[in-house]
Order: sequence, then structure tokens, then C-alpha cells
Amino acid sequence: MTSPVNRQILLARRPSGIPQAGDFELVSRPVPEPGPAQVLVRNAFLSVEPAMRGWVSAVPNYSEPVPIGGVMRSFTAGWIHRSNHPDYPVGTRVTGLFGWQDFAVADVSAIEQVITDNDLPLSTYLGVLGINGVTAHYGLREMGRPLPGETVVVSTAAGAVGSCVGQIARLMGCRAVGIAGGAEKTRQCVEQFGFDAAVDYKAADFSDRLAEACAGGVHVYFDNTAGPISDAVMRHLANRARVVVCGTASLSSWDPWPQGPRVERHLLVKRASMAGFVIFDHAEHHPQARRDLAQWIREGRLVYQEDVLDGMEQAPDAIAGLYRGENRGKRLIRIANAP
Amino acid sequence: MTSPVNRQILLARRPSGIPQAGDFELVSRPVPEPGPAQVLVRNAFLSVEPAMRGWVSAVPNYSEPVPIGGVMRSFTAGWIHRSNHPDYPVGTRVTGLFGWQDFAVADVSAIEQVITDNDLPLSTYLGVLGINGVTAHYGLREMGRPLPGETVVVSTAAGAVGSCVGQIARLMGCRAVGIAGGAEKTRQCVEQFGFDAAVDYKAADFSDRLAEACAGGVHVYFDNTAGPISDAVMRHLANRARVVVCGTASLSSWDPWPQGPRVERHLLVKRASMAGFVIFDHAEHHPQARRDLAQWIREGRLVYQEDVLDGMEQAPDAIAGLYRGENRGKRLIRIANAP
Repeated sequence: MTSPVNRQILLARRPSGIPQAGDFELVSRPVPEPGPAQVLVRNAFLSVEPAMRGWVSAVPNYSEPVPIGGVMRSFTAGWIHRSNHPDYPVGTRVTGLFGWQDFAVADVSAIEQVITDNDLPLSTYLGVLGINGVTAHYGLREMGRPLPGETVVVSTAAGAVGSCVGQIARLMGCRAVGIAGGAEKTRQCVEQFGFDAAVDYKAADFSDRLAEACAGGVHVYFDNTAGPISDAVMRHLANRARVVVCGTASLSSWDPWPQGPRVERHLLVKRASMAGFVIFDHAEHHPQARRDLAQWIREGRLVYQEDVLDGMEQAPDAIAGLYRGENRGKRLIRIANAP
Repeated sequence: MTSPVNRQILLARRPSGIPQAGDFELVSRPVPEPGPAQVLVRNAFLSVEPAMRGWVSAVPNYSEPVPIGGVMRSFTAGWIHRSNHPDYPVGTRVTGLFGWQDFAVADVSAIEQVITDNDLPLSTYLGVLGINGVTAHYGLREMGRPLPGETVVVSTAAGAVGSCVGQIARLMGCRAVGIAGGAEKTRQCVEQFGFDAAVDYKAADFSDRLAEACAGGVHVYFDNTAGPISDAVMRHLANRARVVVCGTASLSSWDPWPQGPRVERHLLVKRASMAGFVIFDHAEHHPQARRDLAQWIREGRLVYQEDVLDGMEQAPDAIAGLYRGENRGKRLIRIANAP
């Protein structure tokens, strides 16, 4: 199942706002050779994340922007196809920031995970056991610090991070309220992911339904959207509420900088806090998070959904599709089948 | 020096925005009698605080709004004039929320401070040793948690809280940058209060001067204003910055709710936090804060400025005057001289 060439998705131009299909270019290059002590990784799954918008933006960010003409940055899962390192034999399943391409040459230090368990599908290591699950675990437990009985509200609740946040909140003894777009996703929040309540932000009665679902006050708000959804939640903060700023998916651009209701008075009157985090800062937390998440999956206490697109040619439009709300669960691109 | 009557400033109507002189009414009532185990306090100094705007607002707040027709809520400093409690003899100097009036009957549990030291003026117990100093001490040390060498920025830097924040920051080994309105106040920040730099938010080159003063990034922003001043500071946050939300003095009204640049992206990209606090929640911290502050004053390491208006008839316009930026230092109304 090896490809004779290395197909790559390059960033063709700097997107304004949400990256669209036309901002990328598919090229074919020779398969590279690993150097001394390096490995050649064969990617099987490419990840698609809302955060990619930031990775290609020239606006200051937590990581260097992907250069024009560079391979699109992405987590991928695959296996070692050739190896010049004795500790990393051919066939080892790995994940890493190996980009939207068939093959990547990498130093072994660039390998994010060496997957030794064989009972869970390779794709899960990009979603519920990858950056999404780890983000939910760290953000909720270490930043939000909810106590049993508290109400945890999460936006993009049917998504890869949000669905995980809601389920972990329930496992911690909290009441979980999800916010999602449309009847299908809110139903999924309750029926599939076990949220206590879910509110449709696209519905005309969103504000009333949210007030109902948060009648006792919001103790932790796990914010994946910013924008009007978050403005509505801020009005229901409980005393000493913690707002965890994880993403800003509802804002299509930061140029011009978006305006909104000022938050200072909420924070002051409710003695509340609002804090952002970047999961890459907390690598020391990842192994324990992955052990917890895998354990919960095996016990049937944590479910996940994947939205798998087939073929690398799907990648260029896949980020815009996330922002159009098309995906159901973690979006992945499958470009090869495991050997 | 006793008054034959009890003059009181009542809240005559609910202000819209900043309380103005016409929102209050001066009345004369009989001096009340303390009941069993109560004391009658003779107020000598009335406090004037920016926070009073919130105390008279009907918008939800951390305390019940002062009722229409009620005595204006205020910290005061004075002495016990009559006593029905053996542990609180006549002449004892006290502070408490005894209101804008000559006399107040109080349970002894309502006494905030019993002043036993005699070397510092009574007025200081309303400012630098009162709620302002304690707010600066708690907010900077417990919420901001600056480390030596970090840059601390404070708005309303020449004010009662701000001047104290800057000086404590310096005592903690930090670089202190003040923001104040006008050349006189910025000069005072540097020359009198020892800030490393001070920036005039009314100057045309505010943005450039702020950028210069914060070239290494802002580690702690002690925010007394919100509004455009804070929007400018947010653009200079360092990684892991802490924004301490103490007041919103630059915003004249919360109805309609003011809009501003969204903060989420700053918090996310800089892994920063923003948190509000209400000093009344932290009574356990007050005694230590007062001991530290008094010690620093005695050692000459902490200076303060007072803006004393004479006579109760000055009170009704005194809050509006704060918001007009008239005061130089802690604003007080003197209504009696110590016996």
C-alpha cells in the first residue's frame, strides 16, 4: 500500500480568516530518504482541527505560522516505513506533527506517541486519545477544576473536544450542559454523550433554554467558541466561576479585531476567572491523560465519534467544513490502510 | 465638637451611571440612642470610593444596592461616643461601614477595625490602611502573584489603590509602570510613588509610550479602569500574564452594556488569565495586610496622599468628582475633629 510518490498538501497562500480549499495545493514529490538515526513515517490518518486556522494565520499565535509553500502542519497517525534507528523498528505505530503528506522523514525525538497497545484503533490516537482528548482532560480537570455537583457548560459540545469534556465532567460527578448547533447535534449530546442537557444555539429560544439549563449558575464554562455563544453563558456565571478559554471557533477572523460585550463586570461581580491554555505547554500531563482516557474507553464509560473522509484530496476543504459545522465528531482524513 | 443633630446624606434617587450631587439629599435627624450592648459612633472621616457607583446601582452587584431614602453606604473612621458595651469604652477609635452621617448606632460586630496604635493619623485607616491599601495588598500579592523582575502595570496609578499597588510591586522587586491621566499625575507616580515609568492615557502618543514602557511584556496588570486603557494593555501581555480585575472606573455605565475588543484571543495565545475579586470576601487577609502596610509606612517605604474635603455638604458631589479625575490621592470628607 506504499505510494510511489509523496503527495503533499502545501499552503499556497495566506488565508484571510478561515482557510478554504483554494488556499492549499496538492503536489507530488519524491519519497524522501531518512538520514542517520532518522525514520520514514507512512501517514495513515491526517488530523483536521479548528486550531489549524491559527496555525496558518500571520496574526501572532502560540506557534510559528506554516510558511507559504510549506507542507500543512498536522498531527498524523501512521507507522514507521523505513528506519535508521535500532529502537524504532519498521511497523511501529506512531503519531506526530508529520503534516498533510504521505510520508515524512523525522528524528525520533519528533515522534509524539509510540503506540504499544493494540486493542484500540489507530485513528483514536489522533482524537479521543490524541490532542482532543488530552485537551479536554487537562482543560477541564486542571484549569476548570470542577467539584462534584457543579454545573459544567461546554460549547461545540458534540465535537471532538466538547463531547469529551462533557463525559469527563459526568465522570467527575458534575452536571454537564452542552451547547451545539442544531437539533441533531443537541440530541447526540444527550443520547450519545450523556450530557444532562443540551441547548441549540441556532434556535430562536436559545437564551431562554440556556437560562433554564443553567438555573443554578455555571461553575465551569469550557469555551471552544467565544463570540455570542460565550456572551450568553457569561450572564449565568455562578460565584467563583472558572471560564476555560480553549478555542474561538465562532469568530471567523481577528482582523479587524472582533468586538463584544466587555467581560470585566462579570468577572468582578462574580469573582470569576477566565484563563487560556495551550495544550502543547503541558506535555507532562499527556501520558496520564491518555491512560485515563484509554481506560474509560475500555470500560465503556467514554464514547467518541469520528468523521472520516477518504483520500488526501479531501484535505484542502476539510478545515472550512469544520467551520461550516459539517462534521460529526473528530474529523480525520484516511490516506492509507494499516499494513 | 458633637453635633446637636445627626446630619445624614441619603440616596434620593437611583443614579443612571455615575452618581451625581443631585442624586443625594442632606437631612438632619435626631441623634439615635444605642440599644443594649450597642455603641454610638461619632464619624470624623467619611470615605469616597469609585466602588460607590456600584453600591447605588440597581444592576446586580456584589452587595445589595443602597435603598432609595437610605443613608449612603460608606466606610468611616471615628470614635465611640456613647457605649453600652463594656469592652468598647467611649473614645475608642474605630472604623466601619457607618455611612455618610454624623452618628451611627452599631452592634460591636459591625466594627471593622478597633484602632489601638496611636502613631498614625485616623484618616489613614480609611485609605492606605483601610480598604484601599488592603485591596492593593491582596489583589497584587494573592491574585497577581508577581515575581521579582516582572513588570506590573496598574491603571489609576496615582489613586488610592493604584499608588499603593505600584509601591508594593517595587517592594516585591518588580518593575512598576503606572497609567494615569495628565502630566501632573504621571509625574506624581514617578516622583512621589516611585514608579519606574508612568504613561499618560490622555496623551496623543499613549499607545506608543505604553508600548515603550512595556517592551518586555506585562506580567501582571492590575486593572482599575477597564475600557480603552485596558484594551491597550492587553495587547502587551507577556506569556502567562495575570490580569487582576479590581475596578471598572473608566466605564460610566453598564446599561447599555459596553462593548470592546474581545479578550479571548489574548488569553489563549498568551496563556493568560483574568480574574475579578471583591476584597470583602477576604477578611482573613486584612489584618496581615494592615500590619504590612503600617510597617512600611513607619519605615518610610510606603507613602500615601490624601485629598480631604471639609464638611458633609461636600459629600454629594464627591463621587462624581472622582470620576472627573479631580482628586489627588485618597478622597475623604472630614466632618469632625478628633476630641
